[in-house]
Amino acid sequence: MNQTTYTIEQIGIIRSELGSREDAPRQVYEGAPHAWLQVHSAFTEGLKGIAVGHEIILITWLHKAQRDILKLHPRRNKNRPLTGVFATRSPDRPNPLGLHRVSVLEISGNRLKVGPLEAIDGTPVVDIKPVLPRSADS
Amino acid sequence: MNQTTYTIEQIGIIRSELGSREDAPRQVYEGAPHAWLQVHSAFTEGLKGIAVGHEIILITWLHKAQRDILKLHPRRNKNRPLTGVFATRSPDRPNPLGLHRVSVLEISGNRLKVGPLEAIDGTPVVDIKPVLPRSADS
Repeated sequence: MNQTTYTIEQIGIIRSELGSREDAPRQVYEGAPHAWLQVHSAFTEGLKGIAVGHEIILITWLHKAQRDILKLHPRRNKNRPLTGVFATRSPDRPNPLGLHRVSVLEISGNRLKVGPLEAIDGTPVVDIKPVLPRSADS
Repeated sequence: MNQTTYTIEQIGIIRSELGSREDAPRQVYEGAPHAWLQVHSAFTEGLKGIAVGHEIILITWLHKAQRDILKLHPRRNKNRPLTGVFATRSPDRPNPLGLHRVSVLEISGNRLKVGPLEAIDGTPVVDIKPVLPRSADS
């Protein structure tokens, strides 16, 4: 039997004025503030080459999510049909990964000011990727 | 001390003609085939609402990657300066997550034909998300 679970680790954490899921907009275009990404010291070397003005993708671990949900009403609207979580952007899903495309606004040591970002304060960050000009997900 | 590691689990696996990292194009626009995503039966309910013609983002776990690398020469080209992994799309990074935007070409039970996809055969899939018309990362 091949391995089917893996260990993922925090490389940093979000510091935001958004304190809870209830405060957070459902999508970034619904209004989201700037926030700070604090990268843990063990990983700061990995930031070399990121500069103010770059567009980056943060992958977060949505630690408040429910992982045992496979279907839901999109946007918690009971009038919308039950939909598979993989056809939605709900944080509730088996592996609660969040994707956030943000601009780098300021860099101060191991801290990046980024935005706009709908993730709440304390959200763990597990990866950072550049937006490539022709990348498949940019 | 808050939790800083998490367990992520396979929800499916890629079946592709690409057998190894050496076969795989570095970026999808450099030529990549279609492939099948086999979703494990415990998670197939989560697919409800995904249809042929949709654009989706697969998040993979790049199981052949080296996780202890923080800087590298982009595209393994020694003439390019050492760069932090978070400023590159290298699979070698602390949490080897891959992002792949693909089209859904065919659906057969728990199997989705998708493409183009540069991930190799046997790559674990850990999440699927819809591309939203105005999403931050689409």
